[in-house]
Amino acid sequence: MPSETGLETPQKTTYELRPVGDIHRSGEVHVLAVFPEYRQGLTAIEGFSHLWVLYWFHENDEPASRSILQVHPRKDPKNPLTGVFGTRSHMRPNLIGMDLCRIEEVRQPCGEIVVSGCQARDGTPLVDIKPYLPYSDSAREVRLPEWAGKLRHKELP
Amino acid sequence: MPSETGLETPQKTTYELRPVGDIHRSGEVHVLAVFPEYRQGLTAIEGFSHLWVLYWFHENDEPASRSILQVHPRKDPKNPLTGVFGTRSHMRPNLIGMDLCRIEEVRQPCGEIVVSGCQARDGTPLVDIKPYLPYSDSAREVRLPEWAGKLRHKELP
Repeated sequence: MPSETGLETPQKTTYELRPVGDIHRSGEVHVLAVFPEYRQGLTAIEGFSHLWVLYWFHENDEPASRSILQVHPRKDPKNPLTGVFGTRSHMRPNLIGMDLCRIEEVRQPCGEIVVSGCQARDGTPLVDIKPYLPYSDSAREVRLPEWAGKLRHKELP
Repeated sequence: MPSETGLETPQKTTYELRPVGDIHRSGEVHVLAVFPEYRQGLTAIEGFSHLWVLYWFHENDEPASRSILQVHPRKDPKNPLTGVFGTRSHMRPNLIGMDLCRIEEVRQPCGEIVVSGCQARDGTPLVDIKPYLPYSDSAREVRLPEWAGKLRHKELP
């Protein structure tokens, strides 16, 4: 819409994210506990070995954390100041976390998926689950900055 | 909080997702146009070759699309009815789309990233950008259902 200055005022729509479950830590694994009203969305999920688990860094859901745009990766001041879009930091404008996880067990009808490879803290809201599709979710000839190239500590899930 | 029936009423918090830019199609590539107030978040992003681009299927942001929990993948009735969490359908409770993209060009200071491999429609709201980290974002011994195993049409980005 035109403003009084004649410049376009961009429309700042926001969107509503609704948790579809909770994530619980259980020893070395995590349990994705899907709410009853969303459990039909798990139909046939046991056909996949790996899932993307998307969640909300709810503990950072306050204006200060959402306005941070640059960080030292891994909180290490020796790593160069990097925009949050070039990190997996849990401080970012939209607090979406995303981990590739291996399905260890699907518990139906109680809507629980036991996974390994999840980094979420206990009690984190689950916002989406997507299948891992290797032919579109993996890349060739990958290039990383030096700080990220050092982070080879996590075992492939 | 306890309800009149004595059962726990789960707390249905929702979270606010704020677009950080727009996605525009431009021939064979897409342009991620980050809003001025978020451009600092792109600092040093050119060190990566590949990004995860997260966006909002805004055209489906109405109750009917968000309540669909099962689909025939690829809209093919021959594919078995599958829960949306086992598909990349753009109908799902939270309308997050996610593509692995290759950076073709970073245009600064205008906050534009030209990418290939994005499936978003022109004008789609951009909600997050994350780096692709091959050591945590790729899996071994992947298993897929038969319908998904056939979808090997997309070139690796």
